Amino acid sequence: MAPKKIKSNDRHIKNLEAIVGDANSILFHKEDLLAYDSDGFTLHRHLPKAVVFPKDTQEVAKLVKYCSENKLPFLARGAGTGLSGGAIPLNEEVIISLVRMKKLLSVDLENRRAVVQPGFINLKLTNSISDKGYYYAPDPSSQYCCTIGGNVAENAGGAHCLKYGVTTNHILGLEVVLPNGEIIEMGENGIPDSPGYDLLGLLTGSEGTLGIVTKITVRILKNPEAKQTVLAYFDKVEDGSQAVSDIISAGIVPAALEMMDKTAIEGVEAAAFPVGHPSDIEAVLLIEVDGISAGIEEQIEQILEVCKYRNVLEVKVAQDELERGRWWANRKTGFGAMGAISPDYLVQDGVIPRSKLPEVLNKINRISEEYGLRIANIFHAGDGNLHPLVLFDARIPGESEKALAAGSACLKACADVGGTITGEHGVGIEKIEEMRFVFSDEEIIAQTDIREVFNPHNLLNAGKLFPMPGRCAEIKRDLKEKEAASIS
Amino acid sequence: MAPKKIKSNDRHIKNLEAIVGDANSILFHKEDLLAYDSDGFTLHRHLPKAVVFPKDTQEVAKLVKYCSENKLPFLARGAGTGLSGGAIPLNEEVIISLVRMKKLLSVDLENRRAVVQPGFINLKLTNSISDKGYYYAPDPSSQYCCTIGGNVAENAGGAHCLKYGVTTNHILGLEVVLPNGEIIEMGENGIPDSPGYDLLGLLTGSEGTLGIVTKITVRILKNPEAKQTVLAYFDKVEDGSQAVSDIISAGIVPAALEMMDKTAIEGVEAAAFPVGHPSDIEAVLLIEVDGISAGIEEQIEQILEVCKYRNVLEVKVAQDELERGRWWANRKTGFGAMGAISPDYLVQDGVIPRSKLPEVLNKINRISEEYGLRIANIFHAGDGNLHPLVLFDARIPGESEKALAAGSACLKACADVGGTITGEHGVGIEKIEEMRFVFSDEEIIAQTDIREVFNPHNLLNAGKLFPMPGRCAEIKRDLKEKEAASIS
Repeated sequence: MAPKKIKSNDRHIKNLEAIVGDANSILFHKEDLLAYDSDGFTLHRHLPKAVVFPKDTQEVAKLVKYCSENKLPFLARGAGTGLSGGAIPLNEEVIISLVRMKKLLSVDLENRRAVVQPGFINLKLTNSISDKGYYYAPDPSSQYCCTIGGNVAENAGGAHCLKYGVTTNHILGLEVVLPNGEIIEMGENGIPDSPGYDLLGLLTGSEGTLGIVTKITVRILKNPEAKQTVLAYFDKVEDGSQAVSDIISAGIVPAALEMMDKTAIEGVEAAAFPVGHPSDIEAVLLIEVDGISAGIEEQIEQILEVCKYRNVLEVKVAQDELERGRWWANRKTGFGAMGAISPDYLVQDGVIPRSKLPEVLNKINRISEEYGLRIANIFHAGDGNLHPLVLFDARIPGESEKALAAGSACLKACADVGGTITGEHGVGIEKIEEMRFVFSDEEIIAQTDIREVFNPHNLLNAGKLFPMPGRCAEIKRDLKEKEAASIS
Repeated sequence: MAPKKIKSNDRHIKNLEAIVGDANSILFHKEDLLAYDSDGFTLHRHLPKAVVFPKDTQEVAKLVKYCSENKLPFLARGAGTGLSGGAIPLNEEVIISLVRMKKLLSVDLENRRAVVQPGFINLKLTNSISDKGYYYAPDPSSQYCCTIGGNVAENAGGAHCLKYGVTTNHILGLEVVLPNGEIIEMGENGIPDSPGYDLLGLLTGSEGTLGIVTKITVRILKNPEAKQTVLAYFDKVEDGSQAVSDIISAGIVPAALEMMDKTAIEGVEAAAFPVGHPSDIEAVLLIEVDGISAGIEEQIEQILEVCKYRNVLEVKVAQDELERGRWWANRKTGFGAMGAISPDYLVQDGVIPRSKLPEVLNKINRISEEYGLRIANIFHAGDGNLHPLVLFDARIPGESEKALAAGSACLKACADVGGTITGEHGVGIEKIEEMRFVFSDEEIIAQTDIREVFNPHNLLNAGKLFPMPGRCAEIKRDLKEKEAASIS
């Protein structure tokens, strides 16, 4: 790291530094900025102008106001674990890092809510309240290091979101700095269905394009009385998929219902947390049910019955919390595990109606053959949220592009059966063009018009989420002209 | 009703009639319009210009386009059961009634969704799928006659929304006619967390100010395996309130957790569905748990224990579906039942943190004394959604105004403890000024700016939901001037 005494001659850097108060709260040397040139989506890299580390909401508001008044592009960044490039500074942005705003501000067990700063780590919340019997439900696989602010931006999901819902279902209130520097509150202290428009829902999942979240009120849940976890091995993907449908049809809502295919199993068994999955199977299901003890046994019986009916090869129930933990570590580190069997991988994130699982998995196999790249599948089967992992070697010229194209083809396959192009990883810059698979130009314009209300000069995280300008911009101009003509 | 052969000389009426195709699809005679001068909120009355009954989305789009091009104010109306005046034509609107668009378009049991037209009656959905073991969860007390389109507009709640969530949690997709006549789709066929901004959430609960919903995809649920229902009587409101908190703290999430106070009990026992509640008690709780049979008994045991600990006078479990049905009819017709003990009543709809129940109920008692009007309380205690029913006699000069003021004071009491001014009935025209209890001018502007994007000429349902113009308009002008100055 460059010695901090070297000062910048850039007027803006000096002014930004004055806002955050000291030289340790800003980075502007190229060698320091390199760590911020991408996020979890590493196929694009751009250097920011600077990275600033505000300590509180007031500093964020001042930074935003300064950037806005001086027409400096800016964006917010949490832990940088996002998988679609939402935090990549495409326009030499000033990055407002929220990692120093990492306090747990309050916990209100009686009304089941907690207030955190955006840089607070997801898993720390559960760890802070588990001794009192409570937890925070959304559990992205990166939860040990990702921030709740980032989770709000991406509307993050996780294995247990099948039963409990994604992030937006657990956000009760937000404090937001708007792109003009104004601070507003959304949501009424954990009150459901507050009056007026649902700004809370609008901001959640807006991928950092409408404002910067500086305080978050979340719902916390009471720990379920009991949990049981099942592993089931199948020698046909169709049987595994059918078991997924049958379990849901039986009226069971598992806390989690995960699937991995043969290639994925090869990866997780070669990586840090092998659990001894057999190597000659085509699919494994990881099924968890939770709730009141008395009801659990009955559900497990039903699940075992369904698996048998669908020709399961082997099925076992976790004997204790230790075994359950090992199974989950094996699953949750699954993406990274692909590093053990491939130099590089690209994770995709499509969603389909559950009933289309076998059809789309077959299609993904054909895409794999067509592009000559292996594709592993690790996914939230219960809610039809696929994660095709395209394995490739970036050192081979052209293979990165081929991986991107194969990933895009997988998303097209999802959209074609009435699904969509992201379940929980966001659009960012990665899936901008794929937005056209699911939205008409009119539908995109309805959304970018809303962005303009919040972010009229498009200084905040520009170039993300929507395919603009282009055909949309043209149509928009046409519409305005038509309207002007009809008025005059 | 006026004979239909009498034609209107109004050019607009003729053109609107031409769009809907026949004279039976439009009303414009004063005596026909009287039925449309208010909705469930009867303290304001205004006549519409006309009422049209389109048959399909295309007709709605044509009507909207015509109104928009000719600067005719318009609004959509379902069954007219709304309690906050959202469907009252303040500006001599053309009312677009959706009651003829009442088809159940499709049911997809495998993927747990159904598609309905906006005029489809809420309860009919459950009745149409109950033989296959499914139901639609949101159950406003008016469900036997209210439309799902109206439920979307108001983000309706109901007794069972404690466990299952309000309307917005069950809407998977919408087809919407925008105020310019454009038709757009929102939501991806029941796929959770679709990309882009959450327009689905934005439209739901927007009280008919952003667009007209013409098709709705809803989530349907599998019937719970078992249900048990409990009635518990208390001679102190505090004990009943504390029992509510204790049940939730015990980790039980009842399907419903309702409370009525002494005055409310007097009303329901004097009305159509008495069940023999004792007359000398201060509070009754109606508690329902559902789920897997094996778990139900255990929860009922815990609930009985809590009630005993909180000095319950009497507690009983429904012996069969018939008894359960009678208890629910008694509760669900509770608002109307006030007609048995008072010439008029005004129902209010505040929400508070559950822990503030005793404090706010005391405050409502004091408001009752202060205004010299009886106030009954029938409410969703589990989620802190109060329904103070202010009893009054509209024939006594000044008493309507006093009732409105007492209702407003109840909402202020809710806002003052960190709650809000509507849980499920909407703002409409009734609570416009009360919006200031919970939103700053900046927060209101952030919302009206969004309305402008959708509804730039404010022809659609103007004068509802937000307190404009006034102080907000001034601030907005100031902000724009400031910005213009900073740019130049």
